[in-house]
Amino acid sequence: MTSLQSLLGIELAIIQAPMAGVQGSALAVAVSNAGALGSLPCAMLGLEAMRDELVAIKAQTLKSFNVNFFCHTPPTPNAEREAVWRTTLSPYYQEFGLDVSTVPVGPGRGPFSHEAADVLSEIRPAVVSFHFGLPSPELLARVRTWGAKILSSATTVEEARWLESHGVDAIIAQGLEAGGHRGTFLSEDLTRQVGTFALVPQIVRAVKTPVIAAGGIADAKGVAAALALGAAGVQIGTAYLLCSLLRCTPKETITPIHANNPGTQKLQCPTPKTASITIAMKVKTEIVIAVLRNRSTNALFISILIPYIKYF
Amino acid sequence: MTSLQSLLGIELAIIQAPMAGVQGSALAVAVSNAGALGSLPCAMLGLEAMRDELVAIKAQTLKSFNVNFFCHTPPTPNAEREAVWRTTLSPYYQEFGLDVSTVPVGPGRGPFSHEAADVLSEIRPAVVSFHFGLPSPELLARVRTWGAKILSSATTVEEARWLESHGVDAIIAQGLEAGGHRGTFLSEDLTRQVGTFALVPQIVRAVKTPVIAAGGIADAKGVAAALALGAAGVQIGTAYLLCSLLRCTPKETITPIHANNPGTQKLQCPTPKTASITIAMKVKTEIVIAVLRNRSTNALFISILIPYIKYF
Repeated sequence: MTSLQSLLGIELAIIQAPMAGVQGSALAVAVSNAGALGSLPCAMLGLEAMRDELVAIKAQTLKSFNVNFFCHTPPTPNAEREAVWRTTLSPYYQEFGLDVSTVPVGPGRGPFSHEAADVLSEIRPAVVSFHFGLPSPELLARVRTWGAKILSSATTVEEARWLESHGVDAIIAQGLEAGGHRGTFLSEDLTRQVGTFALVPQIVRAVKTPVIAAGGIADAKGVAAALALGAAGVQIGTAYLLCSLLRCTPKETITPIHANNPGTQKLQCPTPKTASITIAMKVKTEIVIAVLRNRSTNALFISILIPYIKYF
Repeated sequence: MTSLQSLLGIELAIIQAPMAGVQGSALAVAVSNAGALGSLPCAMLGLEAMRDELVAIKAQTLKSFNVNFFCHTPPTPNAEREAVWRTTLSPYYQEFGLDVSTVPVGPGRGPFSHEAADVLSEIRPAVVSFHFGLPSPELLARVRTWGAKILSSATTVEEARWLESHGVDAIIAQGLEAGGHRGTFLSEDLTRQVGTFALVPQIVRAVKTPVIAAGGIADAKGVAAALALGAAGVQIGTAYLLCSLLRCTPKETITPIHANNPGTQKLQCPTPKTASITIAMKVKTEIVIAVLRNRSTNALFISILIPYIKYF
């Protein structure tokens, strides 16, 4: 069997998880030059910004790198549903002393498009990864034209089988511990989401495609454990969160809030650096509310950590 | 550091998880004689039945074995709360075509007591494990008199630290994938429950006591992964579920139900035997409903898979 390293043209079977909004070309370049696979997240980038970042990567490394896109169907704005959400969330804004009117509107999350493929074809990255399934066959064929290897995330065995039947080159098994958006795309049933320890061996048994373990992996022991479970490599995100190459450091580093609130959960960082990261979360039915603090503006804002395609 | 094997007097660092209601002395004897640690669950046994089972084990093995007890505070019956539960659950009984009046009342779950300690002191097992924390210092001291090693489960880092400070000999890190009752005892906050892959290394870092990984481990690869994460050994339950030595086989083996119901979740068995096990589960808010079928009577019954101490 071809190793993940030879498949993706890397020395270390480690993929730096694309983290839209907090990292750009600098982290991707550093990771690729170190022998693993750096990733550029494009879901929150306009076409010009995306081209600038890709050109920057290409100028700084000859190694393989990965470009990541969402491929969800953007929702149609629905004023009635928005109103229900505002009503549902208003107690949390009150509880954390937030004025909803002061919260800036963030950039949207765009899906992969022919315009993005035009830009991508100028750069011809060795690896392209998708989240929430795969784009249309026409779009996928365009990416294949320069020989790019295709990755996508599975959160269930069914999704892994679907991705294999659609010809991906490797499957990222995204355990429940994984940060960022859940890549769920075949089912909205959250009860099917299981932890990395249970998900990885099930997917390894179900498919012949190489499996990349993601979720809860932050050090060498975690990598060894993932390989023991049958993974061909790992995708790691949170462990990179406090790298000096992150776009959000130190300007937007998240600082502890409500650390002693019994209803909150601490997200411990694997590396003891100057700042620590704590996310205050509250679970009410299926809604997970994260309260974050922007360090530069000291503004608090609420993030809703639920499957993207279900609620947005 | 003392190995788990020498601590518990076993050859293999594997503990057979006590599974109240489905196994008795036969499985414990077979496991201990095979070099791992067999366990007898006592939460659903009366004193006489418990003595009979313990005598049976003692007669059939010279190896170490474990006797397991719950140590929860039994709830005071509350008619009002019962009525709310019946109302809450009635749609599920209707959905699965169950007549609540035909469902037999099962045995209660009793906590460890001085009467149980009296029986235990006749047998003097090498290992005693507890679920839901630890019993009173007086009761724990009684078990210590014959040199028994004490184990208990932690579902969070806080619980692991608490158990260490109370002198347990090893801590079972019970990841979210684990079957059976969650051992939660310090918090009722379900959002703090994480998967085995994330929980084990966090607890290993937090305590000096040997850590036993539990949850999602069903084969040699899982054992290797758990050891890679820093565990000293593993506790395995589900993988034993279809052993011929189980009290419930073949009489009460659970058979598939609603396998194609989109709202159900299949619990896959690691070993392909004659019967497969499927549990139909529905999650509504924080309630997980499992619908099981008793093969001998063909009766369906509902089980509520939620933390024991919270709801019963």
